[in-house]
Amino acid sequence: MPIGPNSAGSLPTGPARSGTGRSGPTLGESGEFALIARIVADLPPSAEVVLGPGDDAAALAIEPPVLTSVDVLVEGVHFRRDWSSAADVGRKAVAVNVADIEAMGGRAVAVVVGLSAPADLPLAWALELADGIRSEGERAGVTLVGGDVTGARDVTISVTVLGGLDGGPLIRRSGAGSDQVVALTGRTGWAAAGMAVLQRGFRSPRAVVEAQRVPEVPYGQGRVAAEAGATAMIDVSDGLLADLGHVARASGVMVELDLSAFPVPDVLRAVAAATGKDPYALLLTGGEDHALAACFSSADQVPDGWRVVGRTRQIGEDEEPGVLVDGAPWKGAAGWDHFGGGR
Amino acid sequence: MPIGPNSAGSLPTGPARSGTGRSGPTLGESGEFALIARIVADLPPSAEVVLGPGDDAAALAIEPPVLTSVDVLVEGVHFRRDWSSAADVGRKAVAVNVADIEAMGGRAVAVVVGLSAPADLPLAWALELADGIRSEGERAGVTLVGGDVTGARDVTISVTVLGGLDGGPLIRRSGAGSDQVVALTGRTGWAAAGMAVLQRGFRSPRAVVEAQRVPEVPYGQGRVAAEAGATAMIDVSDGLLADLGHVARASGVMVELDLSAFPVPDVLRAVAAATGKDPYALLLTGGEDHALAACFSSADQVPDGWRVVGRTRQIGEDEEPGVLVDGAPWKGAAGWDHFGGGR
Repeated sequence: MPIGPNSAGSLPTGPARSGTGRSGPTLGESGEFALIARIVADLPPSAEVVLGPGDDAAALAIEPPVLTSVDVLVEGVHFRRDWSSAADVGRKAVAVNVADIEAMGGRAVAVVVGLSAPADLPLAWALELADGIRSEGERAGVTLVGGDVTGARDVTISVTVLGGLDGGPLIRRSGAGSDQVVALTGRTGWAAAGMAVLQRGFRSPRAVVEAQRVPEVPYGQGRVAAEAGATAMIDVSDGLLADLGHVARASGVMVELDLSAFPVPDVLRAVAAATGKDPYALLLTGGEDHALAACFSSADQVPDGWRVVGRTRQIGEDEEPGVLVDGAPWKGAAGWDHFGGGR
Repeated sequence: MPIGPNSAGSLPTGPARSGTGRSGPTLGESGEFALIARIVADLPPSAEVVLGPGDDAAALAIEPPVLTSVDVLVEGVHFRRDWSSAADVGRKAVAVNVADIEAMGGRAVAVVVGLSAPADLPLAWALELADGIRSEGERAGVTLVGGDVTGARDVTISVTVLGGLDGGPLIRRSGAGSDQVVALTGRTGWAAAGMAVLQRGFRSPRAVVEAQRVPEVPYGQGRVAAEAGATAMIDVSDGLLADLGHVARASGVMVELDLSAFPVPDVLRAVAAATGKDPYALLLTGGEDHALAACFSSADQVPDGWRVVGRTRQIGEDEEPGVLVDGAPWKGAAGWDHFGGGR
């Protein structure tokens, strides 16, 4: 859906950002139709896909309400081609989106993908990206049902996920009451630790570097929490304090975290020591691990695999909804804004 | 959902591509949260939006099958900031996506938008883009229900549309039989004519320039055609010959167009004369007007507002499915590939 034949000739060519070899054809040489044909070949069948890629739109058998969310990953901002493989980027693009559906208590069904890339992107990179989308899709139970491929200077991947509730409840950020327990499943601080070592030119500890490349999303736990009675839920993308801050403000409550509920994994302690960071800053403000945080009316509702990390309480006079750690505001950046602007 | 706090500091700054004044704050100065807050403020209510922007995912009351499609618009490839206003770009991004839902016989309900932009993008531009998304959404009956804003060198807008069939039939590209009529509603060649004059530095004729900036999608006609018995349908995004070629190959038929069914509008004749183009090349190969083309079993099924432009027939021996114009292959580019590669 580009502006005209001449724009193909003026397709921007990206700078060489990585050491990727130039053997093999580029996206420009093979053309978008060739890429799309190879991406959609042999897609696994899904009972919920009424019509897959190749028509003007895909059709999905999802009962209402239909859940949807979009995330955009940009080269140089969200990933680097010399830090992550194309398959890692594809897996991450799917995982971060599916986490948003999990956080509503839903089950992700399908994704559509918009890929913008320079014409000199190796076709092999694009195909490996598609493999990553597909393999994480298999883990998460989602199918790639459509896409658009277009030229741009940066590699940009936008993934929109669609899912459903299968008759279960929709869990919002705004449902937390006071005197409830706050529980967590999944990891925090690992991806941030991975970023810290990658930024210093290291590739180890491997576990945190891999966590930065592809988050380990606790697939299925969103539904588990919803069925257990979660009153509010969020996916921890920006950092636990930032994301629980969203829950606190949407629900009009104070979230009180207990620092003792956050044992520091050895690998995070090691990274923190080597990089001069506070390990608790990693745990409380590190984003991109896509853990799930939820509130429950009582501790006995908290499902297996979740751990209680705090409580909610009513807002006192002269207080604003927010998050306290051991009774006090956390000192340091509570999260961050994508453009570095004010919150 | 960016890779870490430090990446905000290294957010790329785009080159000055247009004459946009730098008065007023930039996206970087105001921050993504400020932009999102302003975009979603006062969104019109919709009975089909169970949950709008602001949570991990939106929730929509769409009966299955759910239709979805994605299109990506990239600055310098699909639009130029000195040729189109931000509102035009927003309107176009919605219109081209809704056309995909129309082409299935569906009704678009909602869009989610991924915006990537340099930090120095004027906030006013981003807000005007949002206004354009909203105003075209009102024309098309769709609501903006979610988004992601992130940094990048180029302005890239990815729009994913969701819609439904309201119990009507799903019209695919592959359903055309032989001895059927081929009909068209909407314009072809206008956007291509607009591009031709813009590329020569002109801003007139105004009608074609405006058609290039924002397509005039025949909203509602997809459903009309489906109810009238359309056997196959497509949205004309790449050019009529290219898109009917998709129908021909998917359906295994030959499409025979009658050139006499394509009267040349005066404005296209004038642009063709001034730019040295064949007016029929504009009509038959110009993309981006997002007309709808459909096949019907008989001419008396063709709805008001549609005109018959040809017929389908069985493939002969030694023939491949395709499109003929007055009985012969069209000489010239039948469409084009986004990366200039082979088809």
